[in-house]
Amino acid sequence: VSTPDLRLKALAQGYIDALNGRSADRVVALFREDATIEDPVGTPPWRGRAEIEAFYGSALDQVLRVEVQTAPRGSYGEAAAYAFRVHLSNRTLDVIGVLTFDEAGLIRSMRAYHGPSDLVEIEPLR
Amino acid sequence: VSTPDLRLKALAQGYIDALNGRSADRVVALFREDATIEDPVGTPPWRGRAEIEAFYGSALDQVLRVEVQTAPRGSYGEAAAYAFRVHLSNRTLDVIGVLTFDEAGLIRSMRAYHGPSDLVEIEPLR
Repeated sequence: VSTPDLRLKALAQGYIDALNGRSADRVVALFREDATIEDPVGTPPWRGRAEIEAFYGSALDQVLRVEVQTAPRGSYGEAAAYAFRVHLSNRTLDVIGVLTFDEAGLIRSMRAYHGPSDLVEIEPLR
Repeated sequence: VSTPDLRLKALAQGYIDALNGRSADRVVALFREDATIEDPVGTPPWRGRAEIEAFYGSALDQVLRVEVQTAPRGSYGEAAAYAFRVHLSNRTLDVIGVLTFDEAGLIRSMRAYHGPSDLVEIEPLR
């Protein structure tokens, strides 16, 4: 059975796939020109194409891989949300991501919920 | 190391524990008088004590158990967020929950992200 939220989930998965493709251009192209990013939630948002390019240019220098922990949930509106772990070179970061989309399927907003205690050092093997 | 977001995570866990305690009174007491609930996201919110009592009175009639799938993440503000599965009598509902708290630790807002496709029938054993 197809329900409207399956589109939201597919769009969220497309964003995750773009991140793991490690192309900032591909990721940024998924966003509206006037989109906002609040990452982490509780800090001032990044607004608009130029700031979003700067954000992902820096982020993709550090992120090795995004591991989805729970498949995206939909909503009865324009949002999808999911739990993921970001793998950095010697740390992991546990996050809840919330994306909203416009009618064209472009990302209107991205919010990433994580706090200081969600960033964990990986034990070295020796 | 204690960080400010540990308080947010503990408050979120307290809400989950209250739900699993299955006392609507205990759950409702965690909310501010003027709190809002948007569940599911994309539908009109429940506002204020009386509506929140009605919401949980009805919800706890249906919910058998809340299973946390990813431990609450914090934020740099007043929010915590986590992934969970709600067990109903013959269905499961997969959700991302976002809670915000005031300075006193009371819930200011609860948002639950789930769409039609997140509600899944459980196969009967025979």
